[in-house]
Amino acid sequence: MRIDIISAVPQVLKSPLSHSIVGRARDNELVEIHTHDLRGYSEDKHNKVDDYPYGGGAGMVLTPQPIFSCIEELQSQRTYDEIIFTAPDGESFEQKDANTLSVQKNLMFLCGHYKGVDQRVRDTLITQTYSLGDFVLSGGELPAMAMVDSIVRLLPGVLGDAESALTDSFQNDLLEGPVYTRPADFRGMEVPAVLRSGDHQKVKEWRLTKSLERTKQVRPDMYEKFRNE
Amino acid sequence: MRIDIISAVPQVLKSPLSHSIVGRARDNELVEIHTHDLRGYSEDKHNKVDDYPYGGGAGMVLTPQPIFSCIEELQSQRTYDEIIFTAPDGESFEQKDANTLSVQKNLMFLCGHYKGVDQRVRDTLITQTYSLGDFVLSGGELPAMAMVDSIVRLLPGVLGDAESALTDSFQNDLLEGPVYTRPADFRGMEVPAVLRSGDHQKVKEWRLTKSLERTKQVRPDMYEKFRNE
Repeated sequence: MRIDIISAVPQVLKSPLSHSIVGRARDNELVEIHTHDLRGYSEDKHNKVDDYPYGGGAGMVLTPQPIFSCIEELQSQRTYDEIIFTAPDGESFEQKDANTLSVQKNLMFLCGHYKGVDQRVRDTLITQTYSLGDFVLSGGELPAMAMVDSIVRLLPGVLGDAESALTDSFQNDLLEGPVYTRPADFRGMEVPAVLRSGDHQKVKEWRLTKSLERTKQVRPDMYEKFRNE
Repeated sequence: MRIDIISAVPQVLKSPLSHSIVGRARDNELVEIHTHDLRGYSEDKHNKVDDYPYGGGAGMVLTPQPIFSCIEELQSQRTYDEIIFTAPDGESFEQKDANTLSVQKNLMFLCGHYKGVDQRVRDTLITQTYSLGDFVLSGGELPAMAMVDSIVRLLPGVLGDAESALTDSFQNDLLEGPVYTRPADFRGMEVPAVLRSGDHQKVKEWRLTKSLERTKQVRPDMYEKFRNE
């Protein structure tokens, strides 16, 4: 898989794409990630990429020209399965979206300024807009990297233990229950005995019970959906 | 405001905390952000911070000792208003949470491994758990930085134009409508005439109409709530 990320502040993207799971996946050539500085595509003499909004008001808006130039150059080199933008009015990004995107070949992410990009970019070039929730960020870089992380960890060979991603929350429509590790007793707080029993069937039952309990308590919507399936 | 972020992979945090809005806010001493490497607090001879889950299964779990040591050392130096963890079973993080947290004095974020931290940490030390949505990440670093970004941009003096944050999506319970900037005509695609009219009242009406339209279409739940207020 190849991922291209377009940003007006690409230096923000550097460390999360160079370390941990995503960094190792790149080192092992399991994914190719390229970042693009929007300023390099500006035809403005000061390499400007934003301007005041028409109609007045606060905040700056990303101008169409550098974005069109950058995206069209990339599109002349390969076909993109999706060109993704993040905005508060996008579709809620969920695990099923990460799953779907993880089997694509070429993905592009455009990181917006928090005040947005010129609507003509959204109308013409963007194929999918996602939101990470009802809150405002100073740019689309962190959401784009969160989506990239959620996708890359699903690629074959990325996680050390192939089984691991399949037991995550959401992969079976339930939240995961509590997890414990050593020591068995930490300052008098003990790990539940069943987890130390070695009885795999009992462990499995306990985990399902806790998973159902947590889901019912925290996410009744998810619990109802699971029960009706 | 002071923010402490605890992580097993603190190098991931570097670039998003050093550039753009958050980086400038730190440079201008409008916020103090410290990152802490969990490995530095491990009493294990190999500085280990994770271990296999009790009961078997895939994925590693953060052990209690380094987290307790790190958080207790920080707590001995000052009082924290919230100690925040991110997990899929947390409360949905929304703009109102960013607003509330932005008036606190000391915040701490613990970034989890994707498979989670030992439940005894969550039971004892964590005061608030947030989720960024129904998807799984390889760690809590990106969600923590997204929350930090949403909080820091609300701090006095951080945004150049003080009015800006108040016109964001969610601050008035509606999504923002489309935005446009120059040129007025880009490849035959024109900016709506009303935005270029100079008639402030008409611009205001157009924006409210578009904002209501987009909210009604994309987020009927938000639209109904707004109408009933």
